[in-house]
Amino acid sequence: MAGLEHIVTFRVRYSETDQMGTYYNSRPLEWFEWGRTELMRAAGLPYTEIEARGLRLPLIEAHLEYRGKARYDDELRMTSRVAFCGKARVRFDVEIVQSGTGAPVVNGYTIHAVVNEAGKPVRPPAWLAGRLGTDK
Amino acid sequence: MAGLEHIVTFRVRYSETDQMGTYYNSRPLEWFEWGRTELMRAAGLPYTEIEARGLRLPLIEAHLEYRGKARYDDELRMTSRVAFCGKARVRFDVEIVQSGTGAPVVNGYTIHAVVNEAGKPVRPPAWLAGRLGTDK
Amino acid sequence: MAGLEHIVTFRVRYSETDQMGTYYNSRPLEWFEWGRTELMRAAGLPYTEIEARGLRLPLIEAHLEYRGKARYDDELRMTSRVAFCGKARVRFDVEIVQSGTGAPVVNGYTIHAVVNEAGKPVRPPAWLAGRLGTDK
Amino acid sequence: MAGLEHIVTFRVRYSETDQMGTYYNSRPLEWFEWGRTELMRAAGLPYTEIEARGLRLPLIEAHLEYRGKARYDDELRMTSRVAFCGKARVRFDVEIVQSGTGAPVVNGYTIHAVVNEAGKPVRPPAWLAGRLGTDK
Repeated sequence: MAGLEHIVTFRVRYSETDQMGTYYNSRPLEWFEWGRTELMRAAGLPYTEIEARGLRLPLIEAHLEYRGKARYDDELRMTSRVAFCGKARVRFDVEIVQSGTGAPVVNGYTIHAVVNEAGKPVRPPAWLAGRLGTDK
Repeated sequence: MAGLEHIVTFRVRYSETDQMGTYYNSRPLEWFEWGRTELMRAAGLPYTEIEARGLRLPLIEAHLEYRGKARYDDELRMTSRVAFCGKARVRFDVEIVQSGTGAPVVNGYTIHAVVNEAGKPVRPPAWLAGRLGTDK
Repeated sequence: MAGLEHIVTFRVRYSETDQMGTYYNSRPLEWFEWGRTELMRAAGLPYTEIEARGLRLPLIEAHLEYRGKARYDDELRMTSRVAFCGKARVRFDVEIVQSGTGAPVVNGYTIHAVVNEAGKPVRPPAWLAGRLGTDK
Repeated sequence: MAGLEHIVTFRVRYSETDQMGTYYNSRPLEWFEWGRTELMRAAGLPYTEIEARGLRLPLIEAHLEYRGKARYDDELRMTSRVAFCGKARVRFDVEIVQSGTGAPVVNGYTIHAVVNEAGKPVRPPAWLAGRLGTDK
């Protein structure tokens, strides 16, 4: 079942634009990652603590749909949701819109393996699944 | 039908690594874009010329599968293919492997709209479809 | 004379680290730019408005001193100051430290030309120098 | 005394542009680093081997002068030189120009500490200074 949801707002930096005058197409993956970081911090489980407990969540798949422009200094609103957390996988769904108008900017998702320090896939432990709201 | 294919080799830059010691997950989108640039140059149709002729190919969808590590200075081989060029769409398929061993690194695709300077979708003209090898 | 000063805090993103486990050396220039953006917004003169009034502030010189590590998710405090605004130049001085301890991370400055839309150097107008606190 | 010199050519990637239509100001630091990598490989001493021998060359200072525009797909020529290698320091001087015209794009330098794996400054050993051409 679907789990936690977290919202952040931010502005497009000059360094994130390209010569078409909108954000460059790789930037949303950096935003997605920051959104996950803040979602997990809000859940009381900062990613640094996940690493300290011996788990890693390397990205294994990502998907992006570019739905609208966003220019330098535009304020955007990003909603990150834990879509599921099962077997040795966690999936986050992300939606980014213009803060003021709600106009769509980017939709996407990322799928992560759950692995131990040796890189071996493991079932997400209860302390992780519980915090992410997907333990029911 | 499938069209042109183009191969480039390159090394992972220090700036493209992250603290996990492998390439950061947004970098492949930059590599994909560079691969398309070189494919189109090899086809005798540099992207700057496409822009000069009044067309743009904005990205509307991207997909990435992270299949293996690549460390600083590893030499990688990237194969870009025109998957199709139809209606108001062009799709490129990309495969990146370790140059020496052929071990998989990243697979993915990008889908682009074909639009005029006013941003209006247009059917890919013959000079574009022909060069991309998808006019049959 | 020295002008405005503005402080922002932020966390190091995963995408900003490299395999040495600290921030990659080009990232501070992106942070500096964001610090200037926020300083100017706080001064009531967003950079988008400066552009709308027909001025550009292209970077002509930058200097960075790397003074300490900053890891993923470390909270940093960045102080940006208008060092001077004269002839056709504006200079910003920047200091970044660890938020908690005050330990130095990066010091630097950026020097910008003041040019019109045609790229011609111009004397900073009163509305600009005044807002930046350097008109005395 | 001055040491080795190495030249590479490359094209500006779309991802390296910003909305002013020229390269974003942090990109040259990534190019500088790639230039050093290739200089050291040409000297028969890849940076990965320097790391394998237990040394690190962390950046402690960087300086950039932005001298001219470079647009998407422009071909640039970058010359990297070992300016000196002394005490616990190595300095590289870099010049980037337009390949075709020689028009200046960026000049700069980077200064690196020479440290062991524990992060302690050390005198550059003979195998390093010798290869960099600064042992006289």
